[in-house]
Parts: sequence; structure tokens; C-alpha cells
Amino acid sequence: MKKVLAIDVGGTKLIYAIINEKGEFLSEVKKTATPKNIEELKNTFKKIISENEKEIDFTAFATAGAVNIENTKVESSTPNMPLGYNSLNFTELSSKPVFVENDANAAAWAEYKTGAAIGEENNITITLGTGIGGGFIVNGKLLRGKSGRAGEVGSMKIQGRGRICTCKRKDCFESYASGSGLKKTAEEIAKNNSIFLTSIYKTKKPEEITTYDIIAGLKENDEYSEKVFNIWKQDLIIGLINITNIFDPESIILSGGMGEFINTKEIEEAINSEIVVSPVKIKPAKAGNYSGMIGAALLACEKF
Amino acid sequence: MKKVLAIDVGGTKLIYAIINEKGEFLSEVKKTATPKNIEELKNTFKKIISENEKEIDFTAFATAGAVNIENTKVESSTPNMPLGYNSLNFTELSSKPVFVENDANAAAWAEYKTGAAIGEENNITITLGTGIGGGFIVNGKLLRGKSGRAGEVGSMKIQGRGRICTCKRKDCFESYASGSGLKKTAEEIAKNNSIFLTSIYKTKKPEEITTYDIIAGLKENDEYSEKVFNIWKQDLIIGLINITNIFDPESIILSGGMGEFINTKEIEEAINSEIVVSPVKIKPAKAGNYSGMIGAALLACEKF
Repeated sequence: MKKVLAIDVGGTKLIYAIINEKGEFLSEVKKTATPKNIEELKNTFKKIISENEKEIDFTAFATAGAVNIENTKVESSTPNMPLGYNSLNFTELSSKPVFVENDANAAAWAEYKTGAAIGEENNITITLGTGIGGGFIVNGKLLRGKSGRAGEVGSMKIQGRGRICTCKRKDCFESYASGSGLKKTAEEIAKNNSIFLTSIYKTKKPEEITTYDIIAGLKENDEYSEKVFNIWKQDLIIGLINITNIFDPESIILSGGMGEFINTKEIEEAINSEIVVSPVKIKPAKAGNYSGMIGAALLACEKF
Repeated sequence: MKKVLAIDVGGTKLIYAIINEKGEFLSEVKKTATPKNIEELKNTFKKIISENEKEIDFTAFATAGAVNIENTKVESSTPNMPLGYNSLNFTELSSKPVFVENDANAAAWAEYKTGAAIGEENNITITLGTGIGGGFIVNGKLLRGKSGRAGEVGSMKIQGRGRICTCKRKDCFESYASGSGLKKTAEEIAKNNSIFLTSIYKTKKPEEITTYDIIAGLKENDEYSEKVFNIWKQDLIIGLINITNIFDPESIILSGGMGEFINTKEIEEAINSEIVVSPVKIKPAKAGNYSGMIGAALLACEKF
């Protein structure tokens, strides 16, 4: 059975393990800080690979950023990664084959093969974190587009309120329905709605209210927090309706930090009452924090 | 070589011809009015099929409405078709195999196999008529979703102005960027903008201005018509940016009545200056008015 060294590359840490072609872990998961410059990062990758190279058939990376169609390098600029990351040729890091995939795509593949969407040939995984990522499975294959960059659902313009996104454009789905979007909504409501005057957060500055405050406020039955969260949910629902109408998927899996705070049954009912395709299932992610590694390893096994 | 009787079913007329597996026409194209009740429609189908059945291997329908995943019947209610259309079992119309596909999907397949998107494994055809239809090719296969209903891009909510769609929801892409959307925009601008006072249409009632008036007005350098058309184009561009960011397609083919009035180069530049994936080509449709028949025939040849 094939053995893969899987490495998940995030802006703050690298996690890695050896995984077999069934998605089972053959080693413990190790962790190290992501170096801040490209030479150090390259050397860290080489060190991790050389320590494991004898045992494995190939290496698979799950990484932030858009990955080219050949699965060999990152092509977009990735603000949280060292400068020059998108000129790194991953295939030169090892004498054995190297595979690279975008982390949201890898996570979606893990949900499809080992997680919440097993056997569902048309499904979508939406990662709700600081930003929004999307991985789309169509006819049992990953949607990668002509250049590998498909799935940029966070940049979908939704019916919105004119909010400016971090990308400078207006009304991106990500600017509303991500964790940062929740924080922004919290700030706007605090500034413009009298409900804030009776909130448990009324002594805070609007721009200092965090996503965690809002989540904590829900448990305290804080009306302001409830209002903010409801608006955030409605914005999320609009985007999920759009992709459901386009893809007619069996399910949409919600993963990432914000995914944990969602009542998926409630979201499912709201979506199914508005779509023009047949009903969709909304489910929490199952593949866990290691879904990037698992998905990248399994995709590499398909490729090599 | 396989021979297919292809029938395109519209709300006002049926057109049909015999087509081979290369998409070449082996007969002339015939036309008849679409009967207004379901029994008559069924009898008309049977008559057309029995007249051609000896010569053909199977029959392929391109039809309005959502088609089930087995390609045997229409599942949605279709307002322009006789009542009961969605309980018609097409496979019972002939002793030879029968295939049914949605007309927008069939048109997209025709563009991919014989038209403007040959060889492009990821491409999209958007039909801009009274409404908006979409056919999506992903990894060389038609995107049909779990139930056959995928591609309902007209129901995508875009960043809009609160317009109520014919489906009663707000800000559907179709309510802005279709032919009907252009007419609605014309009415709104006529009512609310002083530019209308100097228009060649100033004596018309706002709700009587047609899409044809606006198109004709462009040739007359009528500023009101130009304003209306520009707003319509911007709304179209927003929707096309969204699907480009999600699918990263090689090209988007614009077909349908409104497709003819578009400067595809101008739209392409506008889209490519805003997307986060790699550049897309925007092209006029090539497969022509018979693309529904051609696509359905070729899809049937793949299936049988």
C-alpha cells in the first residue's frame, strides 16, 4: 500500500504525518512554526522530507494559495506566506514525486473520501474561517478549472449592503460570511443600532468586538450578539443558495472555525425553502483538523 | 454511424431533424407549433417519431425545464408548456431508446463539441433570452448535479438594487441581466432619471419601452438607451465574474437573443480586470439556433 508524507502548510504552522492510501495515519502528527523567509521555509521542507523519504512513496502538500493545474507550484500571491513562495518549485524538494494542492480543495477531497460526503459524487465543502474557501466535487472529480484556481467562492458578489472587501471590491461573499465578516457586522451594528446600548459589550469600542465575543454573547442571550449572528447567518445562507442553485449538490459540508457554531439543520431548512433545484443536505465537517493532509495524500495517490 | 431524431421543444414551436453522431444534419429541419394541451403534444411527438423511426437509432429531446438525472422526463413545472408536461414519460413515445436533456445543457454541449468551445474541457454557455439559462462543462463532462437540475445560474442573487424577480425573490441575476431585465431597467431609468426627458422615446410610457427599443436606440446614439444598456451590461458582468471565480473556465459562450448585441471583447476586458482566477475568454455562440438539437443528439450518442 502506498505511503505518503503529507504536509499542511499554513501561515503560522506546518503540520505533517505519514498517511497511507486509505487515509490512515502511519505516524503521529508533528508540528513546527512556519519560517518567515523563503530560504528557511525551503530548508525546513527539505529537512522534513529527508527525515521521512526512505519510508514513503511520495510527498503531498496542502497549502494556502492557488495551485497550478500540474500540481507543482503555488501561483497566486499568498499574503500570509513568505515573499517568493509562489516561485518555489515543490518538485525539486525531493527525489521522489511531489504533489501540491490548495488546502480547501484537499479538505473537500478528504470529506468526500473519508468524511461527511462519502459516496456523494456532487458535493461542496465550504471552509468558514478568517476568509472563505471552497472545494467543489463534480461528477466525482475535483473542480479545478483551466488553471487550477477554480473554487474562489469567497469572491462571489452577493446581494449585499455595499460593504468593501479586503480585496477592495464591493459585496464579496467573504466580506460578509467569514469570521472577519462577522466581526465587521458586529462593528456596524454596534455603531448604528440602539440594541447595542443594552448589550453586555456596550462598554467596548465597536471595532474591538471580536467573533468570539459574539459567539460567547449567544450563550448569554445577549440580544445584540443574537442580532449580529442572525444577520451573518442570512448572508451565509444567500451565498449557499447561490451555489446550491448552480451545482445541485447532494450536500454542502461546512468546515473551519466558524463552521462549529452553526446549526446545520436550521441553515438547511432555510436554503431548501428558497432553492429551485432539489433539496440539499447541510452537514458539519467530519474529516477534522487534518483534512488538508488527508485530502492531499489521497489526491497524490490518485495522481501517481 | 448512429442516426438520431433530434427534437427541440419550445413553448411556441417544435423543431426537429435527423442528425448523425458527428452533429451533421441528415435531413432538413422541420417546424410545427407546440400544441396547447398535453394529449395533443404527446400525439404530435408520437407522429413525428413514427414518421422517422425506421431511419433512426434513437430519439433525443432538448426541452425547457429541469430534466431528471436519468434523462427520461421533465421534473420541474414549466410555465410555457402544457399542464401535465412534467408527468410525460418520454421513453414511452418510441420503441427505440429516447433521451431527454434540458435545452441550455444541450446548447452548451453543442458549443463544446461543434461550436465555440471545441477542446475546452472547462467552459460555460450562458443563454441570454427572456430568462437566463446556463450549461456548465466541468472536466469535459456536463454539470448536472445530483438530480439533473444543476446550472440554475439565473437564480443567483447578485449585488443588486433590491429588484423583485418573477420568482418573487430579490436580486436574482436573471431579473437584471436577461432580456426582461433590460426592459425592467429601461422602465426604472425612464421613471427616475431626467436623461429620459431628452430621449427619442420620451413620449412612450416607461413600461412600454421594449428591449428592441433600447437596442435600436443605441444605433441612434440615444443617451437614455446607452445608459440603460450600460447598466444592464454591468449587471451581466457581475454575474459572469462570479461564475468565472467559481469555475475558472477557459471560456464563457454567450448565446440567446441578447447575446447578439454584446461586444464580447469589451465584456472580456471588464471581467478579466476583476477576477481572482486566470483570464477567461468571452465568445459569441457558434452552434446557432439548432444548438439544442445538436447537443441533445450528441449527448444521446454518448449515452446509448
